[in-house]
Amino acid sequence: MTTTGSTVAMAGAMQAYALTLDRFIDHAAKWHGAVEVVTGGVGGARARIGYAALRERSQRLSGALRSLGLAQGDHLGLLAWNSQAHMECWYGAMGIGIVCHTLNPRMSPAHLAGIIRRAANRVLAVSPDLVPLLETLVPMCPTLEHVVMLDEPGAEVSLPTLSRASAWRYEDLLCERGEIVAWGGFEENAPAGLCFTSGTTGAPKGVTYTHRSNYLHTIHQLQADASGLTSRDCALIAVPMFHANGWGFPFSGPAAGAKLVFPGRHQDGASLANLINSEGVTVAAGVATVWLGLADHLDRTGEDLPSLRRIMLGGASVPQALMDRLEQRLGATVQTSWGMTELSPLGTVTPATASVRRASQSGRPPLGVDLLLTDSNGAPLPEQRGHEGRLHVKGASVIQRYFGEDEPAVDSSGWFDTGDLAVIDERGNVSITGRAKDLIKSGGEWINPGEIEAIVGALPEVALVAVVGRAHEKWGERPVLVVESRQGAHISDEALLDALRTRVASWWLPDAIVRVSSMPLAMTGKIDKQRLRAMVA
Amino acid sequence: MTTTGSTVAMAGAMQAYALTLDRFIDHAAKWHGAVEVVTGGVGGARARIGYAALRERSQRLSGALRSLGLAQGDHLGLLAWNSQAHMECWYGAMGIGIVCHTLNPRMSPAHLAGIIRRAANRVLAVSPDLVPLLETLVPMCPTLEHVVMLDEPGAEVSLPTLSRASAWRYEDLLCERGEIVAWGGFEENAPAGLCFTSGTTGAPKGVTYTHRSNYLHTIHQLQADASGLTSRDCALIAVPMFHANGWGFPFSGPAAGAKLVFPGRHQDGASLANLINSEGVTVAAGVATVWLGLADHLDRTGEDLPSLRRIMLGGASVPQALMDRLEQRLGATVQTSWGMTELSPLGTVTPATASVRRASQSGRPPLGVDLLLTDSNGAPLPEQRGHEGRLHVKGASVIQRYFGEDEPAVDSSGWFDTGDLAVIDERGNVSITGRAKDLIKSGGEWINPGEIEAIVGALPEVALVAVVGRAHEKWGERPVLVVESRQGAHISDEALLDALRTRVASWWLPDAIVRVSSMPLAMTGKIDKQRLRAMVA
Repeated sequence: MTTTGSTVAMAGAMQAYALTLDRFIDHAAKWHGAVEVVTGGVGGARARIGYAALRERSQRLSGALRSLGLAQGDHLGLLAWNSQAHMECWYGAMGIGIVCHTLNPRMSPAHLAGIIRRAANRVLAVSPDLVPLLETLVPMCPTLEHVVMLDEPGAEVSLPTLSRASAWRYEDLLCERGEIVAWGGFEENAPAGLCFTSGTTGAPKGVTYTHRSNYLHTIHQLQADASGLTSRDCALIAVPMFHANGWGFPFSGPAAGAKLVFPGRHQDGASLANLINSEGVTVAAGVATVWLGLADHLDRTGEDLPSLRRIMLGGASVPQALMDRLEQRLGATVQTSWGMTELSPLGTVTPATASVRRASQSGRPPLGVDLLLTDSNGAPLPEQRGHEGRLHVKGASVIQRYFGEDEPAVDSSGWFDTGDLAVIDERGNVSITGRAKDLIKSGGEWINPGEIEAIVGALPEVALVAVVGRAHEKWGERPVLVVESRQGAHISDEALLDALRTRVASWWLPDAIVRVSSMPLAMTGKIDKQRLRAMVA
Repeated sequence: MTTTGSTVAMAGAMQAYALTLDRFIDHAAKWHGAVEVVTGGVGGARARIGYAALRERSQRLSGALRSLGLAQGDHLGLLAWNSQAHMECWYGAMGIGIVCHTLNPRMSPAHLAGIIRRAANRVLAVSPDLVPLLETLVPMCPTLEHVVMLDEPGAEVSLPTLSRASAWRYEDLLCERGEIVAWGGFEENAPAGLCFTSGTTGAPKGVTYTHRSNYLHTIHQLQADASGLTSRDCALIAVPMFHANGWGFPFSGPAAGAKLVFPGRHQDGASLANLINSEGVTVAAGVATVWLGLADHLDRTGEDLPSLRRIMLGGASVPQALMDRLEQRLGATVQTSWGMTELSPLGTVTPATASVRRASQSGRPPLGVDLLLTDSNGAPLPEQRGHEGRLHVKGASVIQRYFGEDEPAVDSSGWFDTGDLAVIDERGNVSITGRAKDLIKSGGEWINPGEIEAIVGALPEVALVAVVGRAHEKWGERPVLVVESRQGAHISDEALLDALRTRVASWWLPDAIVRVSSMPLAMTGKIDKQRLRAMVA
C-alpha cells in the first residue's frame, strides 16, 4: 500500500461526532436524569427540576421558538437573571441552532437597544422584574416581534402591555406551542451564543461563541485542575449567565452530571448561606463582593457552611487579606482565575490542589489556552518568565473576529491582544498587573497604576482604590490616587503615601489624592476609570 | 442586519485551533516543563526527563524520522515496551503527521509480519530485548528499510545484524540526524495512530486513531469523574502503550501536567512497590493481575504505599473479593472501567468519588461516549434500564471504519456494535455481562456464560473459569465448565454445581466440568475461548 493509498483509506476512520451543545443536556438527561437544577426565587421560593425533565421542556421550547418564526442562525434575545427557565431557553434555542444573545440588564437602555437592533432580535425573553426596562426598550427596537416573560419561582408573571410586540407567558408558550423538535444536525462551527462586552472603553463589541468553541471551553474547563466538577458536586452559580456564558456552568454542570443551584437575584449573605446549607453546595462561583457579603453574614450569625469545599473567584483580583478571610470564614479553598468575554471566558485558573495560592496570582492556563507576553509593539518578549509584558492569547475558545466586523481581532500570527499586562513566574503562575491602556506615561517612562493599587488596596482602611493619569505640562501625565475608605475607617494622605514610599520609585508617588464616598463602577462591577479620568482632569 | 447576513458575519467568529496531539506536549513543556517522565529499567535503573526536554528531543526525532524518508501520512512501526524513548517516538512522529503503528510483541510473528506489511511500515522502532523477534520478522517484511533500537535504562543496546534493513541506535539517530522540525500545520482529522485488535476472533483488524479523536478522548477522559489527573498527580502506567493508546496516559499526562512513571517490563510486586514509594505515585493504571502481584508482595513484606490514592482497573472484570482485597491492601480506591480498542479505548468508568463501587460494574460513560442497548437484531431495547442487551456505542473517539476496509464498521444509524452484552441499572451503572458471540443456544434459548463464570469465579478455590458451548444432538449446544483451581486449593465438581444450583436455572447447569492446570490465554491476557471450544469439542 502506498502512502497516498493508506491516507485515503484512513479518511473517516473515526466517527464524525459534531461538538454541539445539545450533547451536554442529552448526556445529563440520560445518565444523570434525576440530578437537579435548583432556582432560588422571590421570598426564598425555589423551583427544582431533574436534567431529564429539563431536557424535555427545552425540546418543547425548541418547537415553541420555531412557531414564533425563529430558525437556525437567528438570535434569541435574553434579558434575564439566572434561572431554570433561562437555562431551558439556552438549550431550547441552541439545540436547533438558534443563537442565544444574552443581554446585561445593567447596561443603559441606549446600549441595550443598540445591540438588540444590531443582532436583529425578533424574540426577547425577559425576567418578570425587568418589565419597566422592557417597556423602555420596545419602542427603541423595531425588530422586536415577540416578548416572552420568563417564570421565576415566587414571582407573579403579569404580561406587560407593549405598543407593538406581542407578549407571552413562558409556561403558556410551552403549553400552547411546545411541540418536541429533534436537536442537532448542524455543523459544530455554527454560532451558539452572542455576548457583547461591557463597553467601558467604547461601543460594546459582540463576541460570537460557536458550538465548537463552547463545547471545547467546557471540557477544557472541566479538567480537575480547573473547575473539576464531578457528579457528586453541587455548584452554586452566582455568575450571571449574561457574563460570558456564565463562566460555562450551565454547560459544564450537565456535562459532568453535577447539581446546579442558581441563587437568582438574591445574592445577599443570608440567602446564599441558606441555599448552600439546604442544597449541599460544594463549589461556588462568583465575584469577591458576593463572598464578602456571605462572610459578613456568617460572622454575624456564627453559621458555618460544612458542605462547601471550593470558591471559584472571578472578576478583579482581591487583596491577600480578603482571600485569607474568605478561605478561613467560608471554610473553602479559593481558586483565583482570570478571563474575559473574548476567551469564553477562561484564561487562567489556580488549581484547588495548588500548594501555594496567592491572591495576586490567577493560576495557569488549562490545556487549550496558550499565552504569549509581548512588548508594547507586539513583539514577543525574549524572556517569558519574570518580566511584565502585554498578554496575548490563542486557543480553541478565543475570539477570531468581533460580531459584524470584517477585520480579524487577532494579529498576523493569530494572537489576540487582551490589553492586559501580566507577569509569569518561574512556576508558570500568571499575575495580571494592570491594563495596558491604564498605564501612565510620565517623563517618557511608564507608571503601572496596578502596582500602586495593589499596595494601597491591601491597607485595612481602604475599601476601593484606583490610580489614573492626569495631564501635566512638564511630565506629560502624572498619577492621581482615588480612594474610597471603608465605612467608619480613616487613613491620612501621609499614611497612604508612606505605604507607597518604600515600595515604589519616588517618581511613581501620586501627585494628588482624591477621596470619594462611592467609587464609580462600570456595569461589570469593575471600577470605571473613564469616569475617574474625567473627574480628576 | 438580516438573518443570512448575520450568519455570514459569524463565520470564523472564534479561532480555528486544530485539535492535534502536539498541543499536549507543547502545553506540558511550557507550563510544566520540569515535571518528569520516569522510566524503570533493567536492574532497577531509571531514566528521568522533564517535559520541556522531552519535547525538544521529540522535535529532534521528527527531523531524524524525516531524514529516514518518512513523511506525513506514513507509518512508523513501534514494537516496544513503555519507555521515555517510546513516548518521544509518539510525539516526534505525530507532531509532523506520521502515524504511530503500535505493535504488540506478544502477537505471533506471522500476525506481526502481516500487519507490518499491511501498514507498509518502512521504519520500525524496537525495544532492545526484542532483537530475536526482530530477526525473525525482518525477512518476512519486505517493506522494512530501517530499524531503530530504542534505549532502555540499564539495557545494553547492541545493533542486530539484519539481512536487508539498516539498523540505528536511537541516541545515534537523534545525534546525527536530529534536526529540529516545526510541528503541526495539518488537519485535525489526519491519522495519528494505528492499532490492530488482538485477532482472537479472526484476522487482526486495524483501528486508525485521528488527532481529533485522540485529542477529544484525552480531554473527555481527563474529567474529574474519569482519570481526573491534576498537575500534582504522579501516574504509574502499567498499561502497555501498544494497547489502544496505552489508555491515553501518554497524552493525558502532559495535558494535565502530571508526572508519569513507566515501569517498563518490570511489573513484579517488588519493582512496582519500589517505584510507587520512591516516585510518589498517586494514581496507577493497569489490569488486575498486576495489582494482585503487588498486593501479594505487600502481604509478604508488610510494606505500605502511603502516596497511592487510586487504581484505574482495566481489562476483564474481577470478583468482588479481589477488588475488596486490592482496595484494602493497597490503600487505594479502585475505579473499574470498560473499554476496547475501537473506543480509543474508554467506554465507561466508575468515578473515584462514587459512594457505591461494585466489582461487577464498570461505571458510566463520560461525556462524549453514548451507549445504546439493542436486541440481537440491532433494534433498540424499548427499556434501556434493567434489561440485558447488546451494547452499541457512538462518540467522538469511536471507530467508523477499520483500516483498509471499504465498508463502515457502524450500522445505518451510526452505532458501533461492541459485541458485548450489558445491563444498565437505574442509576446508570453499566455491567458487562458477556460477549454476544460467547452465548450458548440450548433448546432454542440463550445461556449467558458470563453469569455462570461470575458465580464460579467468586469461589475462593477458583483461579480462572470459563464456560463454552459444545455441540449437542438434541439441544443444539450445551455448556461446559472449564476450571483452573488456585494453587494448593481443591473444589469438587459437586461443590461447583452446588454454587450454581440456587443462582441459575437448572437447564443452565453445565453438562461437564473440565479441569485445566493452566487456562489458555490470548495475547491480551483474556481467556482464549476459541481454543477452549476446540478442546472440549
